[in-house]
Amino acid sequence: MGSIGQWSALSQKCIDIQRKSLPAQWALPVEKLATKSGEDITSLPKTSGILSDLELQITEHDAEGIIQKYLSGDWTLNFATEFLSHEALARADELDAYFARTGKLAGPLHGIPISIKEHLEMAGKITHAGFVSKISHVSDEDALIVKLLKEAGAVLHVRTNQPQSLMHLDCDNNITGRTLNPYNLRLTPGGSSGGEGASVGFRASVMGVGTDIGGSIRVPAAFNNCYGLRPTTLRNSNWGLYGINAGQESIRGVAGPLGQSLNDLELFQKALLDQQPWDIDTTLIPVPWRDVELPTNFTIGVMMDDGMVKPHPPVLRAFESTSKKLRAAGINVVPWEPFDHKHGWDIVAALYFPDGGEGYRAEFDKTGEPELPLTTWAIQYSREQPLSVRENWSLNASREAYRKAYHQLMKERGVDVILCPAYPGAGALQGTPKYWNYTAIWNILDQPAVVMPSGLRCDKSLDKVDDTYVARSEEDKREWQAYDPELFHDFPIALQVVGKHWQDETLLKAAKKIEEAIRA
Amino acid sequence: MGSIGQWSALSQKCIDIQRKSLPAQWALPVEKLATKSGEDITSLPKTSGILSDLELQITEHDAEGIIQKYLSGDWTLNFATEFLSHEALARADELDAYFARTGKLAGPLHGIPISIKEHLEMAGKITHAGFVSKISHVSDEDALIVKLLKEAGAVLHVRTNQPQSLMHLDCDNNITGRTLNPYNLRLTPGGSSGGEGASVGFRASVMGVGTDIGGSIRVPAAFNNCYGLRPTTLRNSNWGLYGINAGQESIRGVAGPLGQSLNDLELFQKALLDQQPWDIDTTLIPVPWRDVELPTNFTIGVMMDDGMVKPHPPVLRAFESTSKKLRAAGINVVPWEPFDHKHGWDIVAALYFPDGGEGYRAEFDKTGEPELPLTTWAIQYSREQPLSVRENWSLNASREAYRKAYHQLMKERGVDVILCPAYPGAGALQGTPKYWNYTAIWNILDQPAVVMPSGLRCDKSLDKVDDTYVARSEEDKREWQAYDPELFHDFPIALQVVGKHWQDETLLKAAKKIEEAIRA
Repeated sequence: MGSIGQWSALSQKCIDIQRKSLPAQWALPVEKLATKSGEDITSLPKTSGILSDLELQITEHDAEGIIQKYLSGDWTLNFATEFLSHEALARADELDAYFARTGKLAGPLHGIPISIKEHLEMAGKITHAGFVSKISHVSDEDALIVKLLKEAGAVLHVRTNQPQSLMHLDCDNNITGRTLNPYNLRLTPGGSSGGEGASVGFRASVMGVGTDIGGSIRVPAAFNNCYGLRPTTLRNSNWGLYGINAGQESIRGVAGPLGQSLNDLELFQKALLDQQPWDIDTTLIPVPWRDVELPTNFTIGVMMDDGMVKPHPPVLRAFESTSKKLRAAGINVVPWEPFDHKHGWDIVAALYFPDGGEGYRAEFDKTGEPELPLTTWAIQYSREQPLSVRENWSLNASREAYRKAYHQLMKERGVDVILCPAYPGAGALQGTPKYWNYTAIWNILDQPAVVMPSGLRCDKSLDKVDDTYVARSEEDKREWQAYDPELFHDFPIALQVVGKHWQDETLLKAAKKIEEAIRA
Repeated sequence: MGSIGQWSALSQKCIDIQRKSLPAQWALPVEKLATKSGEDITSLPKTSGILSDLELQITEHDAEGIIQKYLSGDWTLNFATEFLSHEALARADELDAYFARTGKLAGPLHGIPISIKEHLEMAGKITHAGFVSKISHVSDEDALIVKLLKEAGAVLHVRTNQPQSLMHLDCDNNITGRTLNPYNLRLTPGGSSGGEGASVGFRASVMGVGTDIGGSIRVPAAFNNCYGLRPTTLRNSNWGLYGINAGQESIRGVAGPLGQSLNDLELFQKALLDQQPWDIDTTLIPVPWRDVELPTNFTIGVMMDDGMVKPHPPVLRAFESTSKKLRAAGINVVPWEPFDHKHGWDIVAALYFPDGGEGYRAEFDKTGEPELPLTTWAIQYSREQPLSVRENWSLNASREAYRKAYHQLMKERGVDVILCPAYPGAGALQGTPKYWNYTAIWNILDQPAVVMPSGLRCDKSLDKVDDTYVARSEEDKREWQAYDPELFHDFPIALQVVGKHWQDETLLKAAKKIEEAIRA
């Protein structure tokens, strides 16, 4: 057990790295930090005066067509653990030289600024995954996904923040602290890829790489008004995703992109899979990114409520509105009755900490780092005792049976994708996200899922508090009561679209069709 | 703990099923059991007089082109747990009627008689997986692979024997007893798919379905002079492979074919994968059976010795001879230096019984069934205490690192397939196979592997005992001393060819090229 002095001294090392990594000329002076609402700071890139007209044009575009560097730095959000400006500028020069010499792009992501969640290893850099005890860990080599992105021409310009334990839908740790949400500083950016959500949502990066074991790409995408994809597992490499649970395979985390558009997500996946990563990382399946067509009788199942926790009024309104637009566009829309999401939750919850959390607590004990409340919250999902290997097997078998049955049900009902919320609320106060199962259910089912803006925002004049709702449980009550029309007013509302197992390509095609319909 | 009376009474139930399932008119009279050597009975189908000329023609062909039923029954080998003559004849009639009506085959395996290892579930039948305690288990539905074979037109005519625990390279249990080897009744048919090996090797079935977690398809194929494929995992369904370790995923068993030719193995795989089983069993990867070409600079690495246990003189001779023939055919042949197979063995051995064997022993205790010596042998591979979940994770991580490194090494050395023995000896005495790692190493590496006849046989005049060999360990000594020129004289010698992870198609193509060269 370490002392308080020990853990905070260790953390200081990373705070120093963070501060020194931001060139002083890019820090905004305090007087420039005024924003339109005092809480929504997404207009800052435009109003700060620190960006040129050209740079502003760049920040208003998605990755497609951008082949120059993009640089932005705003300290307030605290989304970065380390800016890589030196490396990024050097790499940009290299790419420029390559282009000048050859007239060709170095790869499909030539010059695209991409942020990287901190726990993806980068050679020679501290990678701590949110654990103070791991500040001593310096990576030997890049994560495979980092290597592939570099090979594709990307410019990796910033490493981003994550919560302690990587198991919060929030973004606070004892090292670099709390990341804020650029759309409302009182709200959380979500997590665990909260730094990515803030960075991509704020357009400090065009794309970002997050990881997701229960919603950690999708909730940040949802809360930051951008796009995010949780791919089916075993298509993107986990090699070099640092953490303390290497070899845990019962519920797999997966790396995936956040971006400014659905095209960004597809570009990212194609850039990785075209490099045949399965011939390097033997855990991956040998399936390239495929060209697909939507099924002839393409049908969307809409699940407005998972039967456990009712979404907030603005979220329900967004799904009513979206369903109408889809029908108006001539798309088949049917209700999706959830298939025992409680059962799915019971399986996944037991698998997150099959050791009863002892591995995490042993790490905290090494330095005396305090266990944060949302870490305690996540660990209590586990059973009190560590599972035996045979109990773990039994959960694996239940998981597979559930996956098979859910897939069968989608086929029987003729539903190709499921449209559902990513979280009960459009957003959540800092420190409060506690209900995981609008996203975690698709992790236990291993179905690919994309999050995208609905184009709608919370509106206190439309989305009234409903005190007559009779909650189905304490958690349902807790989440229903979290709705606050004033707090959430004007906050963007996201959609989640869920595909069938392995059918990531069809999912993205479906999401594009949905987007066309709702933007029409 | 049950009494002896209890377990033997339970076993009697299955013996009765076995006996009644063989129509009396197909049992050979005792005077017909004379054979050429008294031990090699593979000529029995020809000499028995019980088969017509037409039937004999059928038994001398592989699956390709056979579209009629094939029936054979010989009690001596004891390879069957249950003959399915009634169902098989009814199915054959159906198929004949279909063909007469439509002029078309019902599927790519139309009428092919295929044997099924007992622990693959068949609806309405007892499935015990070699455990006396499981004789109470009647299956609700067919294993998915059984369904797919039926759909492809196969005639499933016999269920085959397996050892207690499914974890012997031998074939004895407390239910239907010991299966013998048709090439030498004193030798084991191998295991755990020993009934399959005997059935396919004796041509009682054209093809058979075995399962393999450490060599259980390949050792029976090797010891019965036929062909066998252990596919890469997650391509063939394990749904309905009955056992007591559902959810154990650290070292996966896999179902695969035994057959009369390399074409048989390919036909079988293609018949299954063309049905897109991944859209039913969500554990499977969505990769069809692919048409491939061999790499331009196709290269075979020959591993004559795994560095742990030296193969017997006839096996070494077969590999010398084969290498020469390959070179003579203009194929690139290089030596393959094994990459720390001891490390691989340490990982896989610990993963076979991570519960320290307690699950198996609990089953034996239910009826008082005696633990057979080779079960005790296999369980002692495990550590003394059950592993914790975290210890299991650590082994998983080591396994993945080993797979990645081995794959990388094959690429660096430019080797496409590895040619190696399937077992230290060409065969083994009943009850003695104890060294698994010529096959188990490819399970931990999850590389596909095919076994095929070398075309050569042990020859006491060529393959002398070498008393000068200095063994590297006690196990090396034990296996070296198991060679007996008289015992093994004229016993066939097999080859194993190992492909890269996921590259089952390339592997079969390579095996065909090797076969062409050695048959030339």
